Amino acid sequence: MNIYADNAATTRMSKKALYEMNYHLENSFANPSSSYMMGQNARRILDKAREDIAGVIGASPREIIFTSGGSEGDNQAIVSAARLGAASGKKHIVSSSFEHHAVLNTLKALEKQGYEITLLDVHPDGIVRPEEVEKAIKDSTALVSIMYANNETGTLQPIDEIGKICKKKGVLFHTDAVQALGHVPVNVENIDLLSASAHKFHGPKGTGFLYAKKGIRLTSLILGGAQERGQRAGTENLPAICAMACALKEAAENMEESKEIMTKARDLIIKGLSQIEGANLNVDAKKRLPGHINFSFEDIAGESLLILLDQKGICASSGSACMSGSLDPSHVLLAMGQSPPLASGALRLTIGADITEEQTDYIIKTVKETVEYLRSFKRK
Amino acid sequence: MNIYADNAATTRMSKKALYEMNYHLENSFANPSSSYMMGQNARRILDKAREDIAGVIGASPREIIFTSGGSEGDNQAIVSAARLGAASGKKHIVSSSFEHHAVLNTLKALEKQGYEITLLDVHPDGIVRPEEVEKAIKDSTALVSIMYANNETGTLQPIDEIGKICKKKGVLFHTDAVQALGHVPVNVENIDLLSASAHKFHGPKGTGFLYAKKGIRLTSLILGGAQERGQRAGTENLPAICAMACALKEAAENMEESKEIMTKARDLIIKGLSQIEGANLNVDAKKRLPGHINFSFEDIAGESLLILLDQKGICASSGSACMSGSLDPSHVLLAMGQSPPLASGALRLTIGADITEEQTDYIIKTVKETVEYLRSFKRK
Repeated sequence: MNIYADNAATTRMSKKALYEMNYHLENSFANPSSSYMMGQNARRILDKAREDIAGVIGASPREIIFTSGGSEGDNQAIVSAARLGAASGKKHIVSSSFEHHAVLNTLKALEKQGYEITLLDVHPDGIVRPEEVEKAIKDSTALVSIMYANNETGTLQPIDEIGKICKKKGVLFHTDAVQALGHVPVNVENIDLLSASAHKFHGPKGTGFLYAKKGIRLTSLILGGAQERGQRAGTENLPAICAMACALKEAAENMEESKEIMTKARDLIIKGLSQIEGANLNVDAKKRLPGHINFSFEDIAGESLLILLDQKGICASSGSACMSGSLDPSHVLLAMGQSPPLASGALRLTIGADITEEQTDYIIKTVKETVEYLRSFKRK
Repeated sequence: MNIYADNAATTRMSKKALYEMNYHLENSFANPSSSYMMGQNARRILDKAREDIAGVIGASPREIIFTSGGSEGDNQAIVSAARLGAASGKKHIVSSSFEHHAVLNTLKALEKQGYEITLLDVHPDGIVRPEEVEKAIKDSTALVSIMYANNETGTLQPIDEIGKICKKKGVLFHTDAVQALGHVPVNVENIDLLSASAHKFHGPKGTGFLYAKKGIRLTSLILGGAQERGQRAGTENLPAICAMACALKEAAENMEESKEIMTKARDLIIKGLSQIEGANLNVDAKKRLPGHINFSFEDIAGESLLILLDQKGICASSGSACMSGSLDPSHVLLAMGQSPPLASGALRLTIGADITEEQTDYIIKTVKETVEYLRSFKRK
């Protein structure tokens, strides 16, 4: 048995997206900035991908710029809003302590540049409270940045409510939607800036996009040619962008069906693993992504569990892949008030819509056996 | 007849690189930061690509970081050197006026931040003089940035000499090798920072690398996870990186043969087009890339010529693709002392090693006929 249960780290490309990518790698290699017909055809293909992506999230094509991925999008969105704020004397930013490091480390850098950063606590249910966001906003606040769904817990944040508060207060609102897009319906009506990454919804690595509401001028992180209307230099990665558009449309079309399959499997796994002695379901929010399961087991080191599960064909993780190799407890679970031992020993399973009943049973059986084995080993 | 003669704008992927990319898109999708075996296999594949690339340019693997392309590499190299310089009070940078806009616009941004920028003139032969670089270096100089080969003219710069001068003076030396790498032998012995882009040597778009000599700490433009040893966040684009390594090795292996084919065709085309009345070969340096041809024709508007050539199946350009759509005269040709009318009307043909004798003849015949047609049209 071989089960890939780490879809929050990255996903396998869908067959359709792979076909789209290969097609354009072979057939649409011209530079979209070139004036001859081949170049102009490439331009049209690129424009179509932009329209498709905009269509899925309720944006207009001019509000989409292509990036090299989620981290670049997060960096650019936050730096842009910070610069815009500074221009009118506003240098305060509100965010949460369980954001992705692409957000947290950008905020740290801005702090060193004289910005004031407020990181809201996250409640044990893994959800940021809109009223606390509202309370944290000051006259000097330039930006609120709250992720759409957390990468470790899958908890969905009250994005619409927070967006409305920001609108009311005249503050820009950014959301890192890397984990959410393609998995739950996303609409940018109440969002000013949204960053996304293709490889989290069965698209290719190395591409993503940033939505910026009309009128928001982005700071370019990469200077050079006039691509993306001067907001992101560098020859456009057309094949990957087209594959991203294809994967996003496909994810949107299959969303309900995928959600049903994943929710059913997730609930069975949660039920099964909850029966293990000393099992602690780290998150049990109603509003969360359909594929995320996050448990800690008393007296079990996360690393040993992951190694043994890997040997039995289950790919899982303790937290975000970006932080693998670090033995620090998960900053996300700590932010939610979890104790350091449990936050160090988390097992994150993020299943995909291709999961079978057989695999679901195998995961439950294998995790149970492995936890028991590790405990018996300890008692020896 | 359909001839792609704009290889300086972008290249068609080689069959080998395309196969490599497809293979990894399908088979190596795990996140290289993940701890399970699939992730660790991906890590090994990534390490191998890094070794292969380092091997081609005489670097050690730890000196290579992967980027999203040439523009990002240029930006990061220059910003990094500028920050390192500023830390020891050095805020002067020497470059040339015919660099790519990824370099020029980064320098402009640094100028606004209080750096002093010296842009050297380029001589009519398209070559920067090492003695002028030496003269421009001051005690406050942090960095010299001179491109390896110019994108419009193909002229190769005296990189080794400039590198040695910088070493002697204790100044960092960066070269934008986007046009050169894969086309002429490149060795980093006398270079501190080198940026490259895969899609210019028959690799995929959306990936490139930055070489930074051991001991040079890069400033990360994209903050987040600890990828690339903290110097570039974001999930590694493994399939594209492997395809880049494959394309670079292939280009290095076939370099002599490719050079011979291209030089022969180039010389024939130059000889043929020189016979056109009022033809002006914009560059005739001995040291230049094998595929670049750059002409201006008196009383001929570059745009009309390009449109008609396109109709006859020849993809060519007037300058860099990044600046297409702009009607400004080429900043490169102006920097070389060309008059604005001729600098506006340039025809750049950049041929590949797949060029046939039939295509060579067709290019000569068609350009001649088209220039004559445009002139007859004018006289009517």
